[in-house]
Amino acid sequence: MLHKIVKLTVMDVRFPTSSEQHGSDAMHTDPDYSAAYVVIETECGLKGFGLTFTLGKGTEIVVCAVEALAKLVVGMSWQEIVSDFRGFYRLLTSESQLRWLGPEKGVIHLASAAVLNAVWDLWARAEGKPLWKLLVDMDPKQVVSCIDFRYITDALTEEEALDILLKAREGRQQREDQMLREGYPAYTTSCAWLGYSDELLTQLCTDALQKGWTKFKVKVGADLEDDRRRCRLLREIIGQSNTLMIDANQRWDVAEAIRWVSSLAEFNPLWIEEPTCPDDILGHAAISKALAPLGIGVASGEQIDSCRLGSINENLAVLLMAHKFQVPVCPHAGGVGLCELVQHLSLFDYICVSGSLTNRMCEYVDHLHEHFASPVVIRNGHYMPPKDLGYSCEMLASSVQAHRYPEGDVWKANTSK
Amino acid sequence: MLHKIVKLTVMDVRFPTSSEQHGSDAMHTDPDYSAAYVVIETECGLKGFGLTFTLGKGTEIVVCAVEALAKLVVGMSWQEIVSDFRGFYRLLTSESQLRWLGPEKGVIHLASAAVLNAVWDLWARAEGKPLWKLLVDMDPKQVVSCIDFRYITDALTEEEALDILLKAREGRQQREDQMLREGYPAYTTSCAWLGYSDELLTQLCTDALQKGWTKFKVKVGADLEDDRRRCRLLREIIGQSNTLMIDANQRWDVAEAIRWVSSLAEFNPLWIEEPTCPDDILGHAAISKALAPLGIGVASGEQIDSCRLGSINENLAVLLMAHKFQVPVCPHAGGVGLCELVQHLSLFDYICVSGSLTNRMCEYVDHLHEHFASPVVIRNGHYMPPKDLGYSCEMLASSVQAHRYPEGDVWKANTSK
Repeated sequence: MLHKIVKLTVMDVRFPTSSEQHGSDAMHTDPDYSAAYVVIETECGLKGFGLTFTLGKGTEIVVCAVEALAKLVVGMSWQEIVSDFRGFYRLLTSESQLRWLGPEKGVIHLASAAVLNAVWDLWARAEGKPLWKLLVDMDPKQVVSCIDFRYITDALTEEEALDILLKAREGRQQREDQMLREGYPAYTTSCAWLGYSDELLTQLCTDALQKGWTKFKVKVGADLEDDRRRCRLLREIIGQSNTLMIDANQRWDVAEAIRWVSSLAEFNPLWIEEPTCPDDILGHAAISKALAPLGIGVASGEQIDSCRLGSINENLAVLLMAHKFQVPVCPHAGGVGLCELVQHLSLFDYICVSGSLTNRMCEYVDHLHEHFASPVVIRNGHYMPPKDLGYSCEMLASSVQAHRYPEGDVWKANTSK
Repeated sequence: MLHKIVKLTVMDVRFPTSSEQHGSDAMHTDPDYSAAYVVIETECGLKGFGLTFTLGKGTEIVVCAVEALAKLVVGMSWQEIVSDFRGFYRLLTSESQLRWLGPEKGVIHLASAAVLNAVWDLWARAEGKPLWKLLVDMDPKQVVSCIDFRYITDALTEEEALDILLKAREGRQQREDQMLREGYPAYTTSCAWLGYSDELLTQLCTDALQKGWTKFKVKVGADLEDDRRRCRLLREIIGQSNTLMIDANQRWDVAEAIRWVSSLAEFNPLWIEEPTCPDDILGHAAISKALAPLGIGVASGEQIDSCRLGSINENLAVLLMAHKFQVPVCPHAGGVGLCELVQHLSLFDYICVSGSLTNRMCEYVDHLHEHFASPVVIRNGHYMPPKDLGYSCEMLASSVQAHRYPEGDVWKANTSK
């Protein structure tokens, strides 16, 4: 029986995280972690939950974009959608008038992600599986059928993608068992936001070490002396054997990035993340080349991101391309709900694509999980595979209610906003 | 006296162009040319008009984004803004929470363009000049002070930009006189939209030749045999001495672009425009390299665009970079209001930057000019420099009223939408 989607609801949900400088970095000094939160519903009452992450102001713009896309979803059954998921992806991203607003970038792409995330959640729930398990059990041909290859065939063809998935079938069961036992390795960004005091950084980092964390990311880029002091402090606390990464969140130009990061080389960072404009591919390449002799890698920011990319569909394409070119992928997470979502991608990548944990880890941030029906489970610095059905981004009704902007109780009380 | 901006109004204005296939191409089959139309007003009653171009659906999203940006504009005087225009540009494009929605791309950047266009219009009106003349008369240091160099210093530094402008002062007056006399060369896209019949194409093209047009663009990319027939037809009408360009509006992947355009080489197109994903820089380079032996250039789509880029500020940066690397620039125009706006950029480029007309021409489309208070003046296939004050994008109040979506009379009558 076809389950027609009869309703799509989208809500502007915001958390006042800026009041304590959670999430602060060199470019985003006062984020209020927020989401355009989507619920789709079939005529038989099955629900799918999706979201896209935002930083507060402007969430209403993404909500407006989701409402424009809703017309393309409501009226279709989830079975129709997933039987030609590539076609549906293209319907959303290339609608002949809306396409002008992207294509596949900015507000309209964030909105597409929220809608598609809800569709994937609904699909996994309908099949009675967590999303990662739906992907792991999926026929490789069907996985590939979810990807729009229009613009990527010079990097990866459909045949190559299928070939990668077929080759990775060997050892798949052992890797799945291993994940269920040990979880997927993570690093933490929660200890060293730019707005945190040295005292808070020290305390959070000491606590994290005790909980088994071994990999730590520090926000940098506002003031060099400040960065040197904070990196030195962190290195002193975590020692030489643990891992330190730094993230400038797009703060510099190419030359400044090279100069600044070179001055932090003594703290032995594994990578510098987002040194410059996120769209400057040649700039990233130039920085990477200059820093290679110092043993410092360059990470782009949201190359794998459950909400900035076009949901699972586009993330699948990136994971497969990364494997072809042997580039390790360490997904972006944090914000609100990104950890809940992205863990599914990392599990699929290890079990069905890369088969490797070398230089791979998934970002983790310890905020706002209490608002989710199936919050992430972290054990010893690892993401433990979700067991509940779906894509893990259903929020508690009470949390949604309290944080709706501007009418929720949290915001009615917060008159300064 | 400081003229404080006390009010910003934004309207969703749409024209039902899809009913006659005006503007149709391989990716945008049924555009309703539209705009988020902005009016700013100072306390003393001076007004500035700006817009950004859209294709119909989704204009409401851009309107919502302009409303979010309005808070950053209202309360400032235009003098404060232009005395640190670089700072104001960055305020709009890097507001710490809104930045997440871009940065500098998609909906939020279209909205920034609309707001900034209105500020530039206000500035020129306050100075009593057409915008192009404001720019031409501006001290080179002030021109450079409008540009945000954050991410482009590896391509162009502030010193290089200033140097280009100073060197181009020679002969400036002659070039200005020449423009006032002859106008800036244009090409027309109005004859060969993808949805037009061969009969209509023949008629429009014949008429255009009689009016003095010598350069013609044809939309391609949906069906190769169709493209061959249309290019052959156009070439027969315009002859070998006139110029033909083709535009695929992002339809292909890299390999397909090379194959398809090679099959059209016999019609001797000057360039293929937007053969693939607009963000695929390396893809464009690969296509360009492959087509060079055939004598066919590759044009990116909106490298100079008054509404997709961040207004004059970002367009100045592109014009100066293009000059440094000796790349001729042929601005995108058409839609609604794009011709009115972009002519100012071409005039400034010739008079103050490139000093050259070689391989340079500005796009022209013959639609919707009747809705503007100072419509473009075309003579013998050239844009004649605007004489009215400002940036030429003030719409007639009656046109705005009738075309507001969804409440305007045009849309109330159009029940099929």
